[in-house]
Amino acid sequence: MLRFEIIHQSTKSRARVGRIHTEHGVIETPGFVPVATNASLKSLTAQQIDALDIDLMFCNTYHLMLHPGENVVGAAGGLHQFMKRSKPIITDSGGFQVFSLAYGGVHQELKSAGTKKNEGSVQKISEEGVIFRSYRDGKLLLLTPETSVQAQKALGADIIIPLDELPPFHMDASKLKQSLERTHRWEKRSLEEHLRNPRYQSMYAVIHGGIDPQLRAYSCNYLSQLPFDGFAIGGSLGQNRQDMIEMLTLLMPQLPYDKPNHLLGIADLPSLHEAIPLGIDTFDSSHPTKCARHGLLYTAAGNITIAQGRYKQDFSPIDATCDCYVCANHSRAYVHHLFKAHELTAYTLATIHNVRFMVNYMKAKRQLILENKI
Amino acid sequence: MLRFEIIHQSTKSRARVGRIHTEHGVIETPGFVPVATNASLKSLTAQQIDALDIDLMFCNTYHLMLHPGENVVGAAGGLHQFMKRSKPIITDSGGFQVFSLAYGGVHQELKSAGTKKNEGSVQKISEEGVIFRSYRDGKLLLLTPETSVQAQKALGADIIIPLDELPPFHMDASKLKQSLERTHRWEKRSLEEHLRNPRYQSMYAVIHGGIDPQLRAYSCNYLSQLPFDGFAIGGSLGQNRQDMIEMLTLLMPQLPYDKPNHLLGIADLPSLHEAIPLGIDTFDSSHPTKCARHGLLYTAAGNITIAQGRYKQDFSPIDATCDCYVCANHSRAYVHHLFKAHELTAYTLATIHNVRFMVNYMKAKRQLILENKI
Repeated sequence: MLRFEIIHQSTKSRARVGRIHTEHGVIETPGFVPVATNASLKSLTAQQIDALDIDLMFCNTYHLMLHPGENVVGAAGGLHQFMKRSKPIITDSGGFQVFSLAYGGVHQELKSAGTKKNEGSVQKISEEGVIFRSYRDGKLLLLTPETSVQAQKALGADIIIPLDELPPFHMDASKLKQSLERTHRWEKRSLEEHLRNPRYQSMYAVIHGGIDPQLRAYSCNYLSQLPFDGFAIGGSLGQNRQDMIEMLTLLMPQLPYDKPNHLLGIADLPSLHEAIPLGIDTFDSSHPTKCARHGLLYTAAGNITIAQGRYKQDFSPIDATCDCYVCANHSRAYVHHLFKAHELTAYTLATIHNVRFMVNYMKAKRQLILENKI
Repeated sequence: MLRFEIIHQSTKSRARVGRIHTEHGVIETPGFVPVATNASLKSLTAQQIDALDIDLMFCNTYHLMLHPGENVVGAAGGLHQFMKRSKPIITDSGGFQVFSLAYGGVHQELKSAGTKKNEGSVQKISEEGVIFRSYRDGKLLLLTPETSVQAQKALGADIIIPLDELPPFHMDASKLKQSLERTHRWEKRSLEEHLRNPRYQSMYAVIHGGIDPQLRAYSCNYLSQLPFDGFAIGGSLGQNRQDMIEMLTLLMPQLPYDKPNHLLGIADLPSLHEAIPLGIDTFDSSHPTKCARHGLLYTAAGNITIAQGRYKQDFSPIDATCDCYVCANHSRAYVHHLFKAHELTAYTLATIHNVRFMVNYMKAKRQLILENKI
């Protein structure tokens, strides 16, 4: 089980520098958590990932249940052995993907006013759990608090997540309350299932309550009283960054101070800049790796779109201040060429750079907190 | 300029073990030459390529002329600097691609009985050279012996190739003779252009003559009298492997013994097995890397199609006798999963394995020659 150590509390904000000690090593916080959905950080090998110094990596239980199946990963000796990662891993419950396939994300919802995107995938939601249809082979699968935790036991990540219901953004207040109560019951069942055989694994609760501050407070209060090892913030936090930051400003002081917390699915640079002072410890997002594959590269001077003609003869590195393999070895002109020629190596080099940029960005943030400058 | 050293001549066949010394290091022969068309060995970084111990790598002048342009690569300091390769590189003249776009390869020809595949691309062939249309932007480009060599000077490979005409397989005998005469004139002009400023570069002649043994003998005889540094075998060698081996058996004794030779575009395992005893020194082919991206993996026990269901729970390495990064770290089950999940890393791991297999295959062949077993 994890041990959380707070190294320094900023005198200027709620930001803190910490260390989460796990079976597979230490996670420095605040930290960025890249998303390796299918037990692969897209376009990188385990060796390249190791060189990036990523403390914690996110894998998606939903995808791994569908392929190769949690039993296969379990038979391989768990995710660490399967993907050859010696450092910490976190998995989610699978619930987010099941429900977001059914309802779509916030942005789709805002466009379609709540009409379902893929009504067929979720067959039935009951107190027991969710029955959904695999997008791979059409088989019906049952996801319950117990089966989700059992799957996460087979995967063997250091940090696991209880099953929650992801209510659609447009759900009305009374239904949202009912959904939250069910989520709480599911989380409690997940925790009980986990505690039957905790091994080295830790479980983070997921705070819900949508965009209602009172329900969020209620969720913090209820889940804090259960012996979770940390707290993740899930569900809709509003329509834009301002809504999100307002909600997090209210919510963060209500979480137990001495336990680590995690913001689910958000780690774009402007959000990190505003959320770190609120005391959030870890952030996962596929945004930096997805941007990389589209040729959007992060630099200290802002993002650059490397396929633009202006980089064709630019023999400087992507970012002269970056210490990554790409910046040490290749020019913008070479990476530009690889994107224009549709070479697979383009995605690899761009991903290495953006992830390393994020790792260094968080390292710099930690230093600023240590100096009480955040 | 290169220096060729014959280490051992087999007493059993014409097979020999040699070393080609170049500005950028030694090429052990017989050797496999992977194809990095666009200055990128598909899905690998320079660091991963270095770890594979590839002595010589092939880049395509035609593609690099179209993007990013030989002037850009030249301004970057040449191919070695551009793609961060410290070891030897060979480039072709660009002629093969220009003509194969116009006529199609042998297989397409056999199907279509010589009808042109892309008549628009080659605009005009004259004694001066070829005018063709760029598939990228529609611009007209002139490829002559002189412009091809100038482009290859800007690219800066260790071994370069003179411009030749690639006659279609179905060309009749008198036209084939005319084509061969023009090819000889073009190769001589290429050599003269090269020798105006040889620097560290060496030039291999390309033996032509199609499937006519007399024309092949004539081509060997004519080109051997010019001060080329080595000899490549180009053009059609027949409809199948048997045709090719018969032609090579006649042709190889007619090439200067003390200069290195290269078989253009062929390095599948059955062809290597039969061609190495004939005394061929180097072989380029995109076959092993293309197979890799289709999930066809080489093993000592034969090829395996890794996406097949039988490998889903196979936790053994791809090939227990292989010393590559993938076999040392990952299971067949993991590589299978990556292919089924369409993960980009699948292509990287498969390419690393197949190329390393080829490097080791050639190493084993060299050992057998040293022992007079080939």
